[in-house]
Amino acid sequence: MQSSIPDLFGIKIPLIQAGMVWNSGWRLASAVSNAGALGVIGSGSMYPEVLQYHLQQCKAHCSAPFAVNIPLLYPDIESHIETVIQHRVPIVITSAGNPATYTQRLKDAGIRVVHVVASAKFAEKAQKAGCDAVVAEGFEAGGHNGREETTSFVLIPLVKAAVDIPVIAAGGIATGQQMLAAMILGAEAVQIGTRFVCTPEASSHESFKDAVIQAGEGATQLSMKKTVPVRLLKNAFYHKIQAAEDAGADAKSLKEILGKGRAKKGMFEGDLEEGELEIGQVAALVHRIQPAAEVVAEIWREYNTLLDSIKKGA
Amino acid sequence: MQSSIPDLFGIKIPLIQAGMVWNSGWRLASAVSNAGALGVIGSGSMYPEVLQYHLQQCKAHCSAPFAVNIPLLYPDIESHIETVIQHRVPIVITSAGNPATYTQRLKDAGIRVVHVVASAKFAEKAQKAGCDAVVAEGFEAGGHNGREETTSFVLIPLVKAAVDIPVIAAGGIATGQQMLAAMILGAEAVQIGTRFVCTPEASSHESFKDAVIQAGEGATQLSMKKTVPVRLLKNAFYHKIQAAEDAGADAKSLKEILGKGRAKKGMFEGDLEEGELEIGQVAALVHRIQPAAEVVAEIWREYNTLLDSIKKGA
Repeated sequence: MQSSIPDLFGIKIPLIQAGMVWNSGWRLASAVSNAGALGVIGSGSMYPEVLQYHLQQCKAHCSAPFAVNIPLLYPDIESHIETVIQHRVPIVITSAGNPATYTQRLKDAGIRVVHVVASAKFAEKAQKAGCDAVVAEGFEAGGHNGREETTSFVLIPLVKAAVDIPVIAAGGIATGQQMLAAMILGAEAVQIGTRFVCTPEASSHESFKDAVIQAGEGATQLSMKKTVPVRLLKNAFYHKIQAAEDAGADAKSLKEILGKGRAKKGMFEGDLEEGELEIGQVAALVHRIQPAAEVVAEIWREYNTLLDSIKKGA
Repeated sequence: MQSSIPDLFGIKIPLIQAGMVWNSGWRLASAVSNAGALGVIGSGSMYPEVLQYHLQQCKAHCSAPFAVNIPLLYPDIESHIETVIQHRVPIVITSAGNPATYTQRLKDAGIRVVHVVASAKFAEKAQKAGCDAVVAEGFEAGGHNGREETTSFVLIPLVKAAVDIPVIAAGGIATGQQMLAAMILGAEAVQIGTRFVCTPEASSHESFKDAVIQAGEGATQLSMKKTVPVRLLKNAFYHKIQAAEDAGADAKSLKEILGKGRAKKGMFEGDLEEGELEIGQVAALVHRIQPAAEVVAEIWREYNTLLDSIKKGA
């Protein structure tokens, strides 16, 4: 299973921790990068000065390359772009927006740029914009997602066929077994979010982490399809907004129900009833809190053990 | 990659053609079984005497084992159950209903019984009912589907962990590459529907087959979630019923819009506007009509070539 990702990013293991709002600050990113994978700071929930602080801390605690995820719809996007350039962040993962806008500027600053897509069509756009790789995010992934609902099983081969740049698979991956399946389908690396929420280093609230490890099959749903689709745990807030959507509420009404600050309330402050609890479907396969370095090592060991057993014809 | 399925069913290749209403009569089932995989007659769209005719033809044209799919909600279910017992059909695949009702009766008649599930919870029920195997059908599959929307990437490991009987993966599989990924995730065989629609032997209308090979990413959607969720092509009928659902229509109104005979109208009579065109998300990866035997041989060759290249460390 060949992968150009370790060389491209200067890392040892073709595994990327997803940049997640309210979850992935410098503690998680540095722990993952120190373990040989790629740690990612999720800047979407950070004020400009908060991102600066996390970058300083990450550099101080980590000698390996790390990345920053920037949702391109971030209100103060210019500030974030300037910050990652000034701090000479080696890799930037952009999402939720047009890759044509900032990719060249980041590349001119010597930064590797990866864009997150949910379709082959947008993967082609990312390649055309000069991105070094794409993250193909399937329907099963947590948080914001595409409208076409293409799952990893179908999306990975579709994106692989559409572009020449490396494909990083995201959505439905939490184990070495799933990592190998994604690589079989054409990915050169995987991006994992949900499992890294279940680490002491994730900055989210303990109650949220507990809810994730308790979550079984059917515990999440892609909701708010009339505005921005988001996969989240089915809590009281979910049932309220889903009932409104089912009853015919329009995008405006749904945005009013959503209001402001629900993701922070749920994931950072631990309000399991009224908060927005973004997580992937694969939460059903994650049963305990483990240090991030142990998660990286375990997934990589599972992956290689399974690959070796196949090579031996087991 | 070990599999107990060839021994269990008396076949050569751990690949099962899905039983699909208006698509899989004796021509498709016998062609698939003669090619070394397991052909399946989809009895859900057949009157009792029509099923009898297809069984006679299938036996006349095929020396290898074949199966019949019986949706347990079929109106004249007793007749279908009696028919498969009288005809000594070797394998029956039940779906859409409670496996406890008929499994023992079929087993007592010497029939291997497989039940289709969309969750680990129902897989456990199927095992308890005495089923010999389960088909784990992911969200990406065509036709009727579960409410929990669990995708193959997550569902296969979940079901594998829940039962001891063999797991057959369905949903999102059309190539040898996808077959290998499913086996990596814990399946012992795969069930493939969409790709077998695109064969001359499928009994559906040419116009429907053409629409399937033209379908790109995002061309299907799981719709009618307030009644029985179905994945179908987004045609005029889909847009009409989806708009009603989005506007808050209840199950009763949706059933009125659906009416009777839409699946036949679409898939069998070729009405691409007003018919219900059930198909999987993986249609985006199927680009041509090929004989069923060629489909079986090509998938099996791709699977083994890829497996060999991994064994050689490529």
